[in-house]
Amino acid sequence: MRSPVFLALILPLLGSALLPVPAAALEAVASAPTQAQVLAESNNNDWRRPDPANVLYLDLPAGRVVIELAADFAPAHVANIRQLAHAGYWDGLAILRVQDNYVVQWGDPQAEDAARRRPLGEARAKLPAEFERPAEGIDFTRLDSRDAYAPEVGFVQGFPAARDPARGTTWLTHCYGLLGAGRDNAADSSNGAELYVVIGHAPRHLDRNITPVGRVLQGMELLSALPRGPGPMGFFAAPAQRIPIRSLRLASEVAPGERTELEVMRTDTPTFARLVQARRERHEEWFIDPVGRIELCNVPIPVRPAAP
Amino acid sequence: MRSPVFLALILPLLGSALLPVPAAALEAVASAPTQAQVLAESNNNDWRRPDPANVLYLDLPAGRVVIELAADFAPAHVANIRQLAHAGYWDGLAILRVQDNYVVQWGDPQAEDAARRRPLGEARAKLPAEFERPAEGIDFTRLDSRDAYAPEVGFVQGFPAARDPARGTTWLTHCYGLLGAGRDNAADSSNGAELYVVIGHAPRHLDRNITPVGRVLQGMELLSALPRGPGPMGFFAAPAQRIPIRSLRLASEVAPGERTELEVMRTDTPTFARLVQARRERHEEWFIDPVGRIELCNVPIPVRPAAP
Repeated sequence: MRSPVFLALILPLLGSALLPVPAAALEAVASAPTQAQVLAESNNNDWRRPDPANVLYLDLPAGRVVIELAADFAPAHVANIRQLAHAGYWDGLAILRVQDNYVVQWGDPQAEDAARRRPLGEARAKLPAEFERPAEGIDFTRLDSRDAYAPEVGFVQGFPAARDPARGTTWLTHCYGLLGAGRDNAADSSNGAELYVVIGHAPRHLDRNITPVGRVLQGMELLSALPRGPGPMGFFAAPAQRIPIRSLRLASEVAPGERTELEVMRTDTPTFARLVQARRERHEEWFIDPVGRIELCNVPIPVRPAAP
Repeated sequence: MRSPVFLALILPLLGSALLPVPAAALEAVASAPTQAQVLAESNNNDWRRPDPANVLYLDLPAGRVVIELAADFAPAHVANIRQLAHAGYWDGLAILRVQDNYVVQWGDPQAEDAARRRPLGEARAKLPAEFERPAEGIDFTRLDSRDAYAPEVGFVQGFPAARDPARGTTWLTHCYGLLGAGRDNAADSSNGAELYVVIGHAPRHLDRNITPVGRVLQGMELLSALPRGPGPMGFFAAPAQRIPIRSLRLASEVAPGERTELEVMRTDTPTFARLVQARRERHEEWFIDPVGRIELCNVPIPVRPAAP
């Protein structure tokens, strides 16, 4: 028995390929579509092409990680990150930390040494905390789910998010693939030069404690499969152990022919609502219990190569 | 700015080392201890040494993964796994699948070929589904948390678990590090020969759909940092890409001098309750918002080397 465990889960998550579904299969269970069927039935209006000014390419020796920035949640951080990328700040720096079931983090290993650190140039050295933002003025697509950390969860502009009606705020949640800006103990001690990506079970206790700035669209495995750092908190003490960064650039500053063109499923459409429902009620043959429940960080936000 | 992000999280999770806390620091915030302080104050009765008959050593080229079996949840599967390990069934087989943000899986690549597969020997070829068990007769330490998937969550015998009073059942939850037995579409199609470990965000939709058999106590990074499989669902199509298994043995069948002696924090004690509370209310200096909430799979169950 080869046990094709979870055959039903052959589903595009972060950056994997889409699978065509035969028409006959679509008809058979039209009343209760699977995720693959919802994707196959989606049309071009269900997808969006991220603005290249909001897309980062982290080029590592093993390949490219594609990141979308959330400018409406962290405008000051995103502006600084754009400035730093424009100036080539991270090129030749390194991944400094890989902590299992937690985060990958990169930046300047000499950042604490005023004499040796790489200058920030025209970028700001200190930014206000952007842990959350007013809920007013931004569309929130609510997910019906009990959440351990927030009164309401859902999606904003393609990002998993939470909302607190009592506080009147919304914030990006620390799901797998979230990009955030490291800080010291002071709330306003980040500048976007030191960035981290979540590579484990969602550390949601970081929500509203640090500034999220985006999420990885493609190439997560280039971060999540890195060797873990042997030092405390997964830091690499020896420079030779660190993973060099070839470049970190804005897609808008990369020649069109060298870009990685992606489309992301919109999260404010009936199609996405159907996808969530298909993820909640599992009608694939493998499932004995159709589940009927869903948690925010288990909702896939599909990504696919853009049509040429 | 080096941004020692999450300095407060220098906490033993799966298999990391414990940190001593100076007595002065303990006094300073005695009324609201941090996790490190709870651990430093724990005594020997707060820890247990797993029964070697319930401990597996998965020896890979890069090192040893230590697993504890949950015999009271999956007695038939655990009996089969003991039999297979005793017979050396997995020795020389391989890790066949590494799917990002999901699972690592190992077994016999020829399992579906009756002529070429490795014989199961005295082990059973087919086992009953052991997705859940009666809640009666087993102690459940409840966690006060809103859970997306289950009416009640908590801990049983050191494992994260859920419970449904209406069904009268309890089951192990698919948190990071869970070990489960792969199956085909039929509920009773597993035999424990094909095993998987969760290496990503908790896929809780698998709860009550498959048989959990244990959890990894140490060495998670030997699984989570493996290169992802290039095929569908992370399978390695080319045999050369698979990660060979040197051996998978029961600790009770390994010479005492070659064992990895560990202690696991008990989950049914006041000390563990204090640890959960310290994890829920974050009093480390780094936290701006003390959070005040906790999710089942974010509760650490500490592991430490046993005193010689």
